Amino acid sequence: MGETPVVAILMGSQSDWPVLQGAAEVLQHFSVPHEKAIVSAHRTPEKLRHYALSAAERGIKVLIAGAGGAAHLPGMLAAYTPLPVLGVPVETRTLRGVDSLLSIVQMPYGVPVGCLAIGEAGARNAALLAVSILSLENPELAELLREFRSTQTQRVLDQTI
Amino acid sequence: MGETPVVAILMGSQSDWPVLQGAAEVLQHFSVPHEKAIVSAHRTPEKLRHYALSAAERGIKVLIAGAGGAAHLPGMLAAYTPLPVLGVPVETRTLRGVDSLLSIVQMPYGVPVGCLAIGEAGARNAALLAVSILSLENPELAELLREFRSTQTQRVLDQTI
Amino acid sequence: MGETPVVAILMGSQSDWPVLQGAAEVLQHFSVPHEKAIVSAHRTPEKLRHYALSAAERGIKVLIAGAGGAAHLPGMLAAYTPLPVLGVPVETRTLRGVDSLLSIVQMPYGVPVGCLAIGEAGARNAALLAVSILSLENPELAELLREFRSTQTQRVLDQTI
Amino acid sequence: MGETPVVAILMGSQSDWPVLQGAAEVLQHFSVPHEKAIVSAHRTPEKLRHYALSAAERGIKVLIAGAGGAAHLPGMLAAYTPLPVLGVPVETRTLRGVDSLLSIVQMPYGVPVGCLAIGEAGARNAALLAVSILSLENPELAELLREFRSTQTQRVLDQTI
Amino acid sequence: MGETPVVAILMGSQSDWPVLQGAAEVLQHFSVPHEKAIVSAHRTPEKLRHYALSAAERGIKVLIAGAGGAAHLPGMLAAYTPLPVLGVPVETRTLRGVDSLLSIVQMPYGVPVGCLAIGEAGARNAALLAVSILSLENPELAELLREFRSTQTQRVLDQTI
Amino acid sequence: MGETPVVAILMGSQSDWPVLQGAAEVLQHFSVPHEKAIVSAHRTPEKLRHYALSAAERGIKVLIAGAGGAAHLPGMLAAYTPLPVLGVPVETRTLRGVDSLLSIVQMPYGVPVGCLAIGEAGARNAALLAVSILSLENPELAELLREFRSTQTQRVLDQTI
Amino acid sequence: MGETPVVAILMGSQSDWPVLQGAAEVLQHFSVPHEKAIVSAHRTPEKLRHYALSAAERGIKVLIAGAGGAAHLPGMLAAYTPLPVLGVPVETRTLRGVDSLLSIVQMPYGVPVGCLAIGEAGARNAALLAVSILSLENPELAELLREFRSTQTQRVLDQTI
Amino acid sequence: MGETPVVAILMGSQSDWPVLQGAAEVLQHFSVPHEKAIVSAHRTPEKLRHYALSAAERGIKVLIAGAGGAAHLPGMLAAYTPLPVLGVPVETRTLRGVDSLLSIVQMPYGVPVGCLAIGEAGARNAALLAVSILSLENPELAELLREFRSTQTQRVLDQTI
Repeated sequence: MGETPVVAILMGSQSDWPVLQGAAEVLQHFSVPHEKAIVSAHRTPEKLRHYALSAAERGIKVLIAGAGGAAHLPGMLAAYTPLPVLGVPVETRTLRGVDSLLSIVQMPYGVPVGCLAIGEAGARNAALLAVSILSLENPELAELLREFRSTQTQRVLDQTI
Repeated sequence: MGETPVVAILMGSQSDWPVLQGAAEVLQHFSVPHEKAIVSAHRTPEKLRHYALSAAERGIKVLIAGAGGAAHLPGMLAAYTPLPVLGVPVETRTLRGVDSLLSIVQMPYGVPVGCLAIGEAGARNAALLAVSILSLENPELAELLREFRSTQTQRVLDQTI
Repeated sequence: MGETPVVAILMGSQSDWPVLQGAAEVLQHFSVPHEKAIVSAHRTPEKLRHYALSAAERGIKVLIAGAGGAAHLPGMLAAYTPLPVLGVPVETRTLRGVDSLLSIVQMPYGVPVGCLAIGEAGARNAALLAVSILSLENPELAELLREFRSTQTQRVLDQTI
Repeated sequence: MGETPVVAILMGSQSDWPVLQGAAEVLQHFSVPHEKAIVSAHRTPEKLRHYALSAAERGIKVLIAGAGGAAHLPGMLAAYTPLPVLGVPVETRTLRGVDSLLSIVQMPYGVPVGCLAIGEAGARNAALLAVSILSLENPELAELLREFRSTQTQRVLDQTI
Repeated sequence: MGETPVVAILMGSQSDWPVLQGAAEVLQHFSVPHEKAIVSAHRTPEKLRHYALSAAERGIKVLIAGAGGAAHLPGMLAAYTPLPVLGVPVETRTLRGVDSLLSIVQMPYGVPVGCLAIGEAGARNAALLAVSILSLENPELAELLREFRSTQTQRVLDQTI
Repeated sequence: MGETPVVAILMGSQSDWPVLQGAAEVLQHFSVPHEKAIVSAHRTPEKLRHYALSAAERGIKVLIAGAGGAAHLPGMLAAYTPLPVLGVPVETRTLRGVDSLLSIVQMPYGVPVGCLAIGEAGARNAALLAVSILSLENPELAELLREFRSTQTQRVLDQTI
Repeated sequence: MGETPVVAILMGSQSDWPVLQGAAEVLQHFSVPHEKAIVSAHRTPEKLRHYALSAAERGIKVLIAGAGGAAHLPGMLAAYTPLPVLGVPVETRTLRGVDSLLSIVQMPYGVPVGCLAIGEAGARNAALLAVSILSLENPELAELLREFRSTQTQRVLDQTI
Repeated sequence: MGETPVVAILMGSQSDWPVLQGAAEVLQHFSVPHEKAIVSAHRTPEKLRHYALSAAERGIKVLIAGAGGAAHLPGMLAAYTPLPVLGVPVETRTLRGVDSLLSIVQMPYGVPVGCLAIGEAGARNAALLAVSILSLENPELAELLREFRSTQTQRVLDQTI
């Protein structure tokens, strides 16, 4: 793949980075060019709007957005761009991410967000799903994904107790 | 009070009107000039942005926003305007408005939304809270509110079983 | 687009069809060739396995799977194929789809499922997300999606109360 | 603004102070005169009653009340005064504040409480919402609020990962 | 027993009567003198206060209070009187009484409310618990309660399927 | 009061003692003779049965029972004795006592349990409610309870922040 | 199989029969001799005790118990007999069976109950699980179960949409 | 009993072993031959299939499967084998095992899983239930189980506080 980022990893605050970092690591493993940015639906709505409106023309193909609490980032990105948006509910201290999950997954008809699991596993899976999407037209990436899955399977087969 | 609307009642879809109508009725009772509009965070984000950015200069003082599911309307209005925003969680068929409630009330620090109860009682109370806010600098409205409360108390005192 | 199905709509039982039908209608709107099948993770596991293992070579690019209760269909499809799997939690009578939602969205790292909202809105959005994914390499479809979004926006702008 | 307190920060117990302190800090930032008091709906109901009944004549314009568990303080204040009451659900050890949230937000028609998020973010946002309300008739405060929001936006824009 | 009411059945609104009626029927069965009144914590707080403060001297021994949503009636009665207060969570349309339950049962240390099940079964059981309490010093009532329990057991033993 | 225990504090396991201890401390404060015992509904059902069937004749007037998880102790005691039973939901590690709460409070018509809050506050309040019940026919205890409440009120009035 | 009942279907009330009937129908399909009885943990605790203590010697091998709300029947049966007990959470009007589910499944170590799904599907599955258990030492029944499963698989394969 | 394993303890990952270990310890106590294996529904679906399909002929009589999150292991085992499957919901960090519980217990009609409590108590109880099932045709094991229960009862009777 070239150098232009094709996946964007977005989060509302620096404090979400430990969760979203997992997505970046997965994309690095697959050598998928990506960018990451702090974009807050509530505190930087203009940046969100500009980011989403310009994402496609800048070459972005998939957006991964993590957010917690009244998590509006994934849904508002999806409101501004027809690109696939994958949402990662970030765990919250009091409600453990149930609020984040419902705020992301319960989108109304017309503006879809594909929601992953709460927390880091969800962030990593968002990256894997992005890889899966990009693999549809990229046989090399598809091959890498098959290898990743085989290795993963083998790793479980090798576990002992 | 004059004719310029000072309260806005907003909802993401015509289907939310039966809930929000309660807010309009309360404002009518108090002769508070108000306007109502359909503004969807997800389907008309540009209208939302324009609406929120221009609300203050058009004379709006309080925004009442009802939304269901991944309810982003109140929070995104609050992202664009420093005016007080009151959120009404609209009941949803499957999750009964728990999703709407958490999507509205769990706002992060910096962008507050005052959340009312799920459904029509919440919509009516949003209007009452708006009246209460406007009463702070409007003795006539304050007097009307006191009367409303007295009448309400008397009505409960008159109930028999 | 050609005639070979590129999207599969799967469900565990005929009784899920009223929900998943929404996905089919959306794909029809976009003239996306698709197939639908009843595949139960619990009652026809061999069919599920065969279906998932052969999907890619048969030309399927995105799988949409709806399931209710202990909803294992989307996750097991994702276990067998690296293709993107989108899950639709079907509403259940007692728990309103909360069980379906958690069974679909809380996948462990390594095997992602992109989860949509509970019920028909989720089914329709799964189809829209599939269209969005297919649009990445199909400018005509991308154009249709933009039109769909514009129409949708206009329809909300035209609503009155 | 003058010296007479216009905002009251109330809580049922000293142990809620770490949460409500955030509200006080925000009001200090805006130089909004405020007072704070321990008023328990269950343990000092007469003080609550007297406090609420006399608040308006003492110049209080907005009441911020934090409470946990069967959180009756905000609702009972609202029962005694038509002033705007903002409720802050305090996190509880076992139920994480879900009990506090529902006890505050689900008020019946006629006696509104504007509910903020669970915990400290909610307390700080209650203060911001109070500032927003007071700004309606105070251009200087409105200007300070706009500055606060700009600074906040800039701070997010400056974050890097 | 004499004619002076010893149990009070209280509710916040006429609309709660269908639920609380069950409590009255049980007390009638045991010929326990009782009174019923509509007392709203939020809409008639002064009546609540007066009622609770004077209950003991008027001969009331047990208070049964039903309330829904942000259910403050049982807790506020308990705040004003040291008499035993039994709370009945009334089912709510959206949250099915979960809000009522948590608002009643999660009382802080110092002001107890004995909470029964959500809805009519809870109302009837509140009356039975009141009978049980009054039976402690009333052998005739205790005997009636034993008979009631025997009859109830027999009725289940007689059921066939 | 005499020396014969009139209140029983029961729990299913030694591990519940840290929670129920609060009830014992409150009863000690009021010099209410009480006994405590480990009685498990599931592991010592015969002891439970014998305990409940003989409680009244041994002079017990109120039973306080704490239990966690599938908390059957309070309900089964109430099944065997018509004495007032007060239930204390013990916090559980995974579900935080929600399971305990529902297992205790949702009793069917005919066999009431008065349920208190989850955890130690609930245990202490169970003891206070027992004192309140015993006070109905014991003026000295009633006086002590009034003093306790006054002291408690004063203690909150004395708190400063 | 002979005529002596080997499976018991128990429920706390006639009103649970529509749910538990499904279990009886499944057992009839497999010609498994069974009996059914109304046994209430709360209203007929002595019958429950006698039933559970004598079940094994009467030839019962598996107990299926359905209960709703504070569902104590399965757990108390398991307290009295070491036979396998399968619990069926009956749907409740307000909490949809969540209370029943937690009251049945969250048993403490030492006294297991195998819990099935809420409602009729759970009742039918309890019977199937009982058949599965009995099949371990009954090759004919095992063969019938395999046939049942094949037929079931075929029926799904035959469904069309 | 002989040496061939009759119970299988399965889990999706090494990290579940601390929970499932309890099941192994209980089986060891009863000298029930058992095997344990790591089988992931999502990462090693072929191993799961092969394991389940061959379990009966290898002499396995009961399968105990622990899983967390979107817990598909018990249900998929049950899809492939008519042997009794007992599911243990493993606690998850964010949702405390509520997701695991619902994913295991809410199985559709036709493919039963007997679900135990969340966490280690559930794992131990799964083993006890397996012992109970095996005891049906093994008088020695039945005697051991009775002894275990007696000892357990005695241990609670011996506890003091």
